[in-house]
Parts: sequence; C-alpha cells; structure tokens
Amino acid sequence: MSTTVLTLAETRDFLDREFPQMQAGGRAYHLEAVAPLGARMRLEAHERFLRPGATVSGPAMMALADYALYAAILANIGPVALAVTTSLNFNFLRKPALGDLLAEARLMKLGRRLAVGEVAITAAGGGDDIVCHATGTYSIPPR
Amino acid sequence: MSTTVLTLAETRDFLDREFPQMQAGGRAYHLEAVAPLGARMRLEAHERFLRPGATVSGPAMMALADYALYAAILANIGPVALAVTTSLNFNFLRKPALGDLLAEARLMKLGRRLAVGEVAITAAGGGDDIVCHATGTYSIPPR
Amino acid sequence: MSTTVLTLAETRDFLDREFPQMQAGGRAYHLEAVAPLGARMRLEAHERFLRPGATVSGPAMMALADYALYAAILANIGPVALAVTTSLNFNFLRKPALGDLLAEARLMKLGRRLAVGEVAITAAGGGDDIVCHATGTYSIPPR
Amino acid sequence: MSTTVLTLAETRDFLDREFPQMQAGGRAYHLEAVAPLGARMRLEAHERFLRPGATVSGPAMMALADYALYAAILANIGPVALAVTTSLNFNFLRKPALGDLLAEARLMKLGRRLAVGEVAITAAGGGDDIVCHATGTYSIPPR
Repeated sequence: MSTTVLTLAETRDFLDREFPQMQAGGRAYHLEAVAPLGARMRLEAHERFLRPGATVSGPAMMALADYALYAAILANIGPVALAVTTSLNFNFLRKPALGDLLAEARLMKLGRRLAVGEVAITAAGGGDDIVCHATGTYSIPPR
Repeated sequence: MSTTVLTLAETRDFLDREFPQMQAGGRAYHLEAVAPLGARMRLEAHERFLRPGATVSGPAMMALADYALYAAILANIGPVALAVTTSLNFNFLRKPALGDLLAEARLMKLGRRLAVGEVAITAAGGGDDIVCHATGTYSIPPR
Repeated sequence: MSTTVLTLAETRDFLDREFPQMQAGGRAYHLEAVAPLGARMRLEAHERFLRPGATVSGPAMMALADYALYAAILANIGPVALAVTTSLNFNFLRKPALGDLLAEARLMKLGRRLAVGEVAITAAGGGDDIVCHATGTYSIPPR
Repeated sequence: MSTTVLTLAETRDFLDREFPQMQAGGRAYHLEAVAPLGARMRLEAHERFLRPGATVSGPAMMALADYALYAAILANIGPVALAVTTSLNFNFLRKPALGDLLAEARLMKLGRRLAVGEVAITAAGGGDDIVCHATGTYSIPPR
C-alpha cells in the first residue's frame, strides 16, 4: 500500500465536520500528515492545556493520541465506517515543557473488524525523547 | 483507616487551586465524596464534551477518571506531595447517553512510592452498567 | 441472567480438552466456580511458578488471569465459538507469599462481538489485598 | 551511551542464575543481543507453548515480553538492583504460526526510579508483522 484512501485535505475536512468540539476554544489540533498506516498530528500550545509547572496536561495528551490514531485509521479506510475506540493505554514518561507537541501514530494492524496502533508524543523541536506513549484498539463496524 | 486525611471540602479547595483549567468553560467536574481509599466525581453534561451521536467524548471520560483517581489519592495522603500520573489504561464499554456521568475511584494500593487504583464510570441514574473502566498508576514523590 | 450456559463441570471439561498444555507439569489451575458473568480459578503453588524471594512469578499470574477470564466467557456464552484474547493489562501490586492464588474474574461487558472483564488475584487465605489486577478484552467470532 | 553496562554473556549468566525456572522443561528463552536501551530475545518453539490451532500461547508471549524487557533493563543498569514489574499491557495482533518468536525490547525511559519500555514480537523469519505488542513499567529500587 503506497497511498492512503483519503488525502490529507480530505481527512482534515472529515475530522472538522465530525468533531468540531475538538477545536472548541480555538483551533489547537493540526493534522500535519497522513501516510500508509500512519498520521502525524500537532497540538498547539494553548493556555487551556496547561497544568501546574507550566506543562501540558495529561488529558490534553490523551485526547491528542486518540485523535491521531483515529486520523490514521480514517485516512486508511476512508469514511465508510466510523471506528470506535475500545481501549487505550498510556505511559507518561516525562513532563513536556510548554510548547507544541507532535503525535506520530502508526497502525500495527488494520483488520476488517479491529485496528490497533501506537502513538509516540514528543515535544516539537525537543528531540526524540518520548513524553507520552499510547497504544489503542478500535472497533470497525461491519461495512 | 476510617477517615481521610483531607475532608471533602479541603480536597475540593486544593483541586480548585491547583487545577483551575479543569473547569475552564464552566464548572463541570464536581467532587461529590471522598472516603478511605476512594472518591466519587461527577461530570456534568456540557456541550463541550459532546460527540457525534450525542454521546460524551472519550477524552472527557479519560480526564474524569484521572481526576477522580487523583482526588482519591490527594484525600488519602494529603497535599504534602504532588502525585504524578505514570500510566492509565481505559476500556470503553458502552456509549453513554448524553447526561451526567459518575466516576467511582477506588485505590487498590496506596504505598510509599506508588498508588494504583481503578475507576468505574457509569451514567448518573442509568443503573450499574459501566460505560468506561480505567486503571491508573501514580508516582508519589519522596516526602 | 441467573444461571450460566455451561455448568462448572462442563466448563472444566471443555478447558481440559482444549488447553491440556495449561496443566503440563502437573495440574495447577483449578476452576472452582462459574457464575453469571463471573468465574473463580485457583492456582496451586508449584515450584515451577516460583521466583527469587519465594514469590509466585508474574507470568504465572498473567496466565491465571487470562485463563480465569476465558473460563468466565466460556461458561456464559457456551462453546459455540472460541473467544480470542485481544488485549490484556496488568498491574502488579504486591509480591504474593508463596501459596495458592485465587483469581476472581468478572465480565463488565459480554457483547455480541466483544467481551471485557477484570480479574482480582489475591493470596488464598491472605485477606482481601489484591496482589495483581488485570483487565482483558476478548474478540468473539461471528456465531 | 554507546555500550551496555553488562555484556551479552554477563546478562545471560545473571538471568540464568536468578531465573532458572524460566528454562524449566528445556531451555527455550535465548537472549540474542543487548544494546543501549534494548535487548532481543528468542523463544524457541516447544510443545509446551502450543495452543489449539498450533499457535504459540498468549502466556508464553507475555512471559517472553516481560523477560526481554527485564533483560534490557538489567543490561543497561547492571545487577546492582532488582527491577520489579509494576505494569504490563499487551495487544495480541495476529496468531503466530508455530515456530520461533523474536522479541525486540526497547526502553523509552530509564530513570532513577522507573523504567518504561515496549516490545514487538514477530515470527522469526516471518517478516515485520507484529504478532504481539507490549509495554511495561518497572520499578527500580533505591541504589
């Protein structure tokens, strides 16, 4: 597989239509790339994601990871069916400095009924140190 | 242990001071009870937590679970040290109808360095069916 | 639902036929009870499960938790379809003293395609302290 | 960091001394390599790991993942302290054909108190398809 089913622009449009609440309070989640079995999403630093110590909150990183995995699935199966998150696992490794975060999502399995992927979140411009790692499983409705 | 280190009012005050961003957009997270090794938190239905199909979003439930576990730890060790979330695992079992959600947090271990707990989220007034189940581990800094 | 689809004896027989390897080296896993949405399994202390410090090994507890959840699903849907483990999450809370372990499995969801449950492992005769907690998801093939 | 604290031979010797039970029934776990923040372990196909359908059992893969992560930590901190598994998360992606399995462990964090890593298990000679993915957290006692 060398291309995605949806282009980057098509994936963005679909996400904006289906999940307008993700951007409530000002656009902060930016889908930067889609690829075969992958996607990259940026979380722009907004004050609403802050926590004591000027770090990005855990819930903001969890939403970012879930959204990036969802985008990777959507781009690779098309909007024919709405995948549903069935489980998510997070390890929080380091406190990120305040700034943009990058989530690299990679699907390890894209089956007929189940998709499984992992996400590595790093600080934009902050090297390869992973600040949060996630794995997720998604149920794909019958098509 | 038959009482908590912090009262309900003291735990609420601490959370409000330390995590004002959780209530950005209007107060929605309500700590209803603290108990030995436990806490209950209510998430009030707000439009900002909605998803397609008029269901509460996964990220809203994840934030609720983390916050409820944090409150249980805080009430039971006091504000002498700030616990840090190290891992979280979620299973999403059913789509909740739009309405308030209740998170019952229960600590299975409250050690010197590590706390581990689980959370069952149900629809308020909707019976015992769990809509989301979470487990979390928290690192407790040296005191 | 007040009874199970398979009786305790029927569930035991099925497990023994399908998973003889679980008892290789001497019978150690004993299914003690099945119930609506639940099952209890005992792991008999055998030298092959030991670890330094005379504690039961993590892998032995993981196998026990998976097997107990599988038994709970089997007893409650019958042997019409073989469920497949899709994910498991474990928290290891305390080192168990050497001795028998009890695994209480409880299904939080038993859907058409997906079953989700949790397991609390305690030391037999050692009180309520959980030594290992697990959650698992199982895919149920189309029937 | 360009080398490990323990060599491959030293790591093997330590594991054999501390965990002789892992090889009960015939040597099956083979540590093939250690590297900065990593290790590779092979599980030799033995009949005791079989399941219906001639596939390697889930518990055998869980033990392999835990052991590979443990080896990676040991090789990179030395035998000065015994790390303790605190949590493990597994996603089972495909049924492996019967044959040797390879576990590639990679540490994402090796802190003073906590190590976190992931493991990808593939079929030896079977391409890059991951059959089981794991993440684990380990508590490192004060040194």
